[in-house]
Amino acid sequence: MQQPQLLHEEKVFKDPVHRYVHVREKLIWDLINSPEFQRLRRIRQLGTSFFTFHGGEHSRFNHSLGVYEIMRRILETFEGRIQLSYEEKLLCLCAALLHDVGHGPFSHSFEKVFRYHHEDWTRAILLGDTQINRILRRMGDDFPKRVAEVIAKTYDNKLIVSLISSQIDADRMDYLLRDAYYTGVNYGNFEIERILRVMRPHDEGIVFKFSGMHAVEDYIMSRYQMYWQVYFHPVTRSAEVVLRKIFQRAKELFAKGYSFAQEPVLLLPFLTDKVNLSDYLSLDESVILFYMQMWRKESDPILKDLCSRFLDRNLFKYVEYNPRDYRLLQELKQEFQAAGIDPMYYLEVDTTSDLPYDFYRAGEEEERIPIMLLMPSGELVELSQKSEIVEAISGKRRFDYKLYFPMDKVLALPEDVSGKLRERLGVMEDA
Amino acid sequence: MQQPQLLHEEKVFKDPVHRYVHVREKLIWDLINSPEFQRLRRIRQLGTSFFTFHGGEHSRFNHSLGVYEIMRRILETFEGRIQLSYEEKLLCLCAALLHDVGHGPFSHSFEKVFRYHHEDWTRAILLGDTQINRILRRMGDDFPKRVAEVIAKTYDNKLIVSLISSQIDADRMDYLLRDAYYTGVNYGNFEIERILRVMRPHDEGIVFKFSGMHAVEDYIMSRYQMYWQVYFHPVTRSAEVVLRKIFQRAKELFAKGYSFAQEPVLLLPFLTDKVNLSDYLSLDESVILFYMQMWRKESDPILKDLCSRFLDRNLFKYVEYNPRDYRLLQELKQEFQAAGIDPMYYLEVDTTSDLPYDFYRAGEEEERIPIMLLMPSGELVELSQKSEIVEAISGKRRFDYKLYFPMDKVLALPEDVSGKLRERLGVMEDA
Amino acid sequence: MQQPQLLHEEKVFKDPVHRYVHVREKLIWDLINSPEFQRLRRIRQLGTSFFTFHGGEHSRFNHSLGVYEIMRRILETFEGRIQLSYEEKLLCLCAALLHDVGHGPFSHSFEKVFRYHHEDWTRAILLGDTQINRILRRMGDDFPKRVAEVIAKTYDNKLIVSLISSQIDADRMDYLLRDAYYTGVNYGNFEIERILRVMRPHDEGIVFKFSGMHAVEDYIMSRYQMYWQVYFHPVTRSAEVVLRKIFQRAKELFAKGYSFAQEPVLLLPFLTDKVNLSDYLSLDESVILFYMQMWRKESDPILKDLCSRFLDRNLFKYVEYNPRDYRLLQELKQEFQAAGIDPMYYLEVDTTSDLPYDFYRAGEEEERIPIMLLMPSGELVELSQKSEIVEAISGKRRFDYKLYFPMDKVLALPEDVSGKLRERLGVMEDA
Amino acid sequence: MQQPQLLHEEKVFKDPVHRYVHVREKLIWDLINSPEFQRLRRIRQLGTSFFTFHGGEHSRFNHSLGVYEIMRRILETFEGRIQLSYEEKLLCLCAALLHDVGHGPFSHSFEKVFRYHHEDWTRAILLGDTQINRILRRMGDDFPKRVAEVIAKTYDNKLIVSLISSQIDADRMDYLLRDAYYTGVNYGNFEIERILRVMRPHDEGIVFKFSGMHAVEDYIMSRYQMYWQVYFHPVTRSAEVVLRKIFQRAKELFAKGYSFAQEPVLLLPFLTDKVNLSDYLSLDESVILFYMQMWRKESDPILKDLCSRFLDRNLFKYVEYNPRDYRLLQELKQEFQAAGIDPMYYLEVDTTSDLPYDFYRAGEEEERIPIMLLMPSGELVELSQKSEIVEAISGKRRFDYKLYFPMDKVLALPEDVSGKLRERLGVMEDA
Repeated sequence: MQQPQLLHEEKVFKDPVHRYVHVREKLIWDLINSPEFQRLRRIRQLGTSFFTFHGGEHSRFNHSLGVYEIMRRILETFEGRIQLSYEEKLLCLCAALLHDVGHGPFSHSFEKVFRYHHEDWTRAILLGDTQINRILRRMGDDFPKRVAEVIAKTYDNKLIVSLISSQIDADRMDYLLRDAYYTGVNYGNFEIERILRVMRPHDEGIVFKFSGMHAVEDYIMSRYQMYWQVYFHPVTRSAEVVLRKIFQRAKELFAKGYSFAQEPVLLLPFLTDKVNLSDYLSLDESVILFYMQMWRKESDPILKDLCSRFLDRNLFKYVEYNPRDYRLLQELKQEFQAAGIDPMYYLEVDTTSDLPYDFYRAGEEEERIPIMLLMPSGELVELSQKSEIVEAISGKRRFDYKLYFPMDKVLALPEDVSGKLRERLGVMEDA
Repeated sequence: MQQPQLLHEEKVFKDPVHRYVHVREKLIWDLINSPEFQRLRRIRQLGTSFFTFHGGEHSRFNHSLGVYEIMRRILETFEGRIQLSYEEKLLCLCAALLHDVGHGPFSHSFEKVFRYHHEDWTRAILLGDTQINRILRRMGDDFPKRVAEVIAKTYDNKLIVSLISSQIDADRMDYLLRDAYYTGVNYGNFEIERILRVMRPHDEGIVFKFSGMHAVEDYIMSRYQMYWQVYFHPVTRSAEVVLRKIFQRAKELFAKGYSFAQEPVLLLPFLTDKVNLSDYLSLDESVILFYMQMWRKESDPILKDLCSRFLDRNLFKYVEYNPRDYRLLQELKQEFQAAGIDPMYYLEVDTTSDLPYDFYRAGEEEERIPIMLLMPSGELVELSQKSEIVEAISGKRRFDYKLYFPMDKVLALPEDVSGKLRERLGVMEDA
Repeated sequence: MQQPQLLHEEKVFKDPVHRYVHVREKLIWDLINSPEFQRLRRIRQLGTSFFTFHGGEHSRFNHSLGVYEIMRRILETFEGRIQLSYEEKLLCLCAALLHDVGHGPFSHSFEKVFRYHHEDWTRAILLGDTQINRILRRMGDDFPKRVAEVIAKTYDNKLIVSLISSQIDADRMDYLLRDAYYTGVNYGNFEIERILRVMRPHDEGIVFKFSGMHAVEDYIMSRYQMYWQVYFHPVTRSAEVVLRKIFQRAKELFAKGYSFAQEPVLLLPFLTDKVNLSDYLSLDESVILFYMQMWRKESDPILKDLCSRFLDRNLFKYVEYNPRDYRLLQELKQEFQAAGIDPMYYLEVDTTSDLPYDFYRAGEEEERIPIMLLMPSGELVELSQKSEIVEAISGKRRFDYKLYFPMDKVLALPEDVSGKLRERLGVMEDA
Repeated sequence: MQQPQLLHEEKVFKDPVHRYVHVREKLIWDLINSPEFQRLRRIRQLGTSFFTFHGGEHSRFNHSLGVYEIMRRILETFEGRIQLSYEEKLLCLCAALLHDVGHGPFSHSFEKVFRYHHEDWTRAILLGDTQINRILRRMGDDFPKRVAEVIAKTYDNKLIVSLISSQIDADRMDYLLRDAYYTGVNYGNFEIERILRVMRPHDEGIVFKFSGMHAVEDYIMSRYQMYWQVYFHPVTRSAEVVLRKIFQRAKELFAKGYSFAQEPVLLLPFLTDKVNLSDYLSLDESVILFYMQMWRKESDPILKDLCSRFLDRNLFKYVEYNPRDYRLLQELKQEFQAAGIDPMYYLEVDTTSDLPYDFYRAGEEEERIPIMLLMPSGELVELSQKSEIVEAISGKRRFDYKLYFPMDKVLALPEDVSGKLRERLGVMEDA
């Protein structure tokens, strides 16, 4: 292992959320300046949310620095409370900084259509032939692997894993604060200083002094509100639906041998399902948006229409949908088809759900590590046993179903057909 | 003239700077939803500043809504003080909303290389075959032209022009506050509520009650600080230099008949100097960034290198430059050439200057309308005659000259050549 | 009724919470400048909370202006939605401004000991021989009475009453925001603009559009957090306990004919239970604090000690107390007595409780008007039926019991007595 | 010297300006809890400013904690840059915390009339028979004296003195930020984090890296604005004039043997000019306000009237005054006298002046230590030589003269007398 190096002088990034992001280690500085990390500047943190909250245009670069900074501050509060080696600290910092490095553009939709997981790309970037890998290896040949393990939650130190992946970790704390700041929505605010003050290291993961329970409650409530107010906003989801349909259509056209005016070179690896690391790293939001510009001039009416909708924010309208009403959906599909509106691309149910907080339920999928309170007696007690507010929402998954379709197309139908369809959809006029 | 329509219910945009942007007119709502206005989401307000201040990723869409909102509030304060017709108010609101609609991606650099003015495109968008033109024409056939005149400062109502183009107008007030908010820099803050409270309509343009002079001073100082702290930051300018060189190289290669791996379709109109409105509207930052991705894989070493630099933020280093030292520059060019580093692309003086405030100087180019104070006596007095702070900086143009070059290329030269060059450049080591 | 007058020009107060407080009516302006209203500058909004949160030093004057300003904004949002007469609007504004005008210094403790209700004094100030009464009567002879009725919740327009006294009204909204701002505690923040946007007038009181339910939830949670984090903070309550004991001791001494070094002239009316309006209006916090300065030099050891404790913030310590453990309390009293520490003044159980939100329960004491949501269908639904978070906490009264005593006095006892007492109290050492 | 003690666990105060005030030393904790320091809770930081800005009700306790916290952070940035002994650091912290401990109520006016300097009382509290002295002496017998010397600027380490008393020190930085926060005025904001980052220790006092010059400029401008917008606000000064007149009248009456309804016990030492430390420590704002309550019921019409004016905020009106117009003043005095309004108490010129920044001028009274910039070359350069903005205002003392008088009394005169007087005063009507 090469001796870790400090910078001559601490460097800082001006950050509106944390005031300054402080960097003292040359390793961190070099990681930030690697091409793979700089690429995150070209991928927005909130995907299509900017269509709903125009301020939400910040990148994953922005957020990743924030997570790093929170981790740095957590480690500072641990001083004198737990003995972490210099290497372990760096491990925490690197994992915080790089936890999102494998994200692609509009991940949510793109991954669904092209069937991959950004987590796998994160691992590939850490372990493959990249600048990041070379920088990390300065700390030892297995250091990149250890960083990958921390991010994948398979690292054997539970405390370290919990700092970046638990129900209250550096990642979540940063994005709630940051997304609230940029969108201008108040809900995401909570007192991070207070939470950092009551956080204590423990073998099983971070725990929180009982005296700070209300600050933790407040954080849980912020999270809950941000999910329903911002992350799951129906307009944002409408843009995601349109986006998925674009990818789906391009994929279908390509599969059918459709001839594009100009070959979509940077997407070919995805269309042919032969993506290598270098292909993946060339992908960012500008690539997707560029092809939309090209495709809005294509001859295929569906691809053309969908791309224009996305670029011009002419999104789908939505109505509430009852998932038990499966027959209605089937009938609507037939009626859309009959009216000449392809239901494959123009009628879609979008489901979303959130579990605001959960205690541990052995054996269930997606087990969640509960938040533990450290009582004055030294005992650990699970949060929902002390907080009635958290108790009220814990373990309750809430669902939301909406049916999306292009209202303008429905309105453009002959009056009787249109009227009937709108009656079925439950939308009498365009609000 | 079609009767103007109000929305059923006021619509709002959540905005972190002004809390809410309020829209009551259907006309404004439709303009915001036009493709030409939505395009502004794909053009950043601060160009390359995000390389220096990572928070500065917000779009011109964002800012344009803000200017509109400030204008709306100004008109509100005018109620009962001046008689503006409903049409004139709409004129103000439209001009505020659309004043930047002709901006292209990285305008500063792109316009320089491809020799056009975004102001001309703004006019073309307002008057040409666009959705915006069709919407504006609802207010009468000459309404688009009147909006264009207000933006071009040729409209004959001085008051209306001054609201959008003077030394303290809706545009400047929004961008100072907004850029400060997103970058996290404090300097741009001033008390806009106070300024709106002391603003008074006057035949010659807006004036300010003397009792609010300190708020105006504070605004002028904010502007001064933002220019030197943010807008002219040397790292941002370095990115602009690299960007200009990319465009310049692409243009040169194209002129020479260089064969690109894939034809840069969306840039062809610019490279051949035959741009029509539709071509221009297809241009946005994603197009530029896409071609950088393509070009970083081109065979031309200069284009390839410059694109990688921009995408990976491996920018040029800078040293102070004395503009009188022209001979030094000539010699350096020769030395760069001799060392195999093309000075045309790798050695550049960048000059910037700012005139923080000026009173009127008849006959001078770029005449500035002075800020007038309304004294208790009713008399108008020019700001710098009352404020010694403003007096101190008014009319004083401040310049900054920097010499940019790629330090890594210099360091990669044989040691003696490198050492000599660095001595000439005045940089002994890479900080 | 005299014709209401507008000010020549709107006046404003700079306010850190609402930016500006706007006054247009001469009536409001004159009320603010009346001696009875100015007196509120000498009474702190948060009583003894400043001992816990040093920033919480703001006065009821401060808060009263804020409530007025929120009311003004609510009325603004009502424009075009409901027809309120000019007189009714003034009624709302006056009630908002004056709702706390009868408060005395450290009301909570002072009222308990001297057995009165500040509500009665509010009524007396509105209806009695005061400047405020004279100003209000300009609007008609029964106007003061109507203002008093609105404040007392007996006015027959339920909507108007609900604006100032319901579970989400101008008073509560201001104090949560204001107390959060001054103490620096984050919990009290909620999006008041959003709440004002979704508020709708209704015959039965204000209701809230369903689309704004989350903003209302957020407000309820803020309220809940502020109660437990700030208002019921055990240190604040310790100061209240000491304060009550001071008043109790002074009262007892006076009753016994104790001869004070100087007669407490301004308190005599209270000690003799013959208070008239003028006596009451002379009472403020400076009077109480002045007498503490005097009394800390008195010969009575208990009064002297208690006053020093309050002035020097040498408060009582506390331990949790189980209200069912009544015998322990009795025994402790005896042990204190035996040890020479008068339990009447030095051992006190303080109980506090909060009901964060409640729906209507007919016939119960202290009936609360529920918060109603206005569904898209036009139907009204009670909040907790839609919000599971609110449902979780509604109707659940939470109690907190603490036992207060002077730790220093216990520690000063002979070691064995002290050790035993501390064991009984459950405090082994002074933390 | 007793070994300094750390607290078991760091204690914090929630502070709205600095988020948290951190205390680690038992010595600091004990000082904060001393009666002499707690007394600062009963003395407002901004004297009578709350009459103009209702939010400005915060105490000197509040501010003193803030100065301490800034000092703590400055010392943190010095780590690794300069070798300060533990004792010197404590010296800095104590001086920061205690620098205002000798302030009395409404010092500005009270000191003028009763002719003392709070600086002398600060010294007396540090060195006399006080809890603070006993706590400080734990660090050695001469420690209190050393703290006093730092505060008095006579300590021989210039760096340490400059941290608390220079043109940019912990005291000024806290009060600008704090007063801006509480009043809600924006002007006082500057980027303290940036200033702390560019601050460097130097033998001659703190200096600032040239790269941070703009942050220093911004601070100087904030200071300038706060002085003229807040501290010298004419309404605040009107309250000070009234206050001075009250003290002056009470003093005169006492000297003449006037018999007060009740002897003003706590003011007697001041009226008889025999104040000892204990007397002084019993004095706070509540004492002053209490006596105003008593005196507003006195028989002397002037004392009575002035006290009512202060308590009810019925202050004096003001007009601009030209100091060269001395004859006008003399004549006005005669005319007031003739009209039965005692000019001694009802006609007063108030002068205020500010020198926003100054470089060193040897031999002049009130020499100011200039702000020095540390150039990249290592050279020190005085600020105004680099900053044209600072240069513009440096060394320029600005004066403001106003003439104060009770408008109501003038208006109550017979119409011809009143009209003439108002003409002389230049106020035609009551605005």
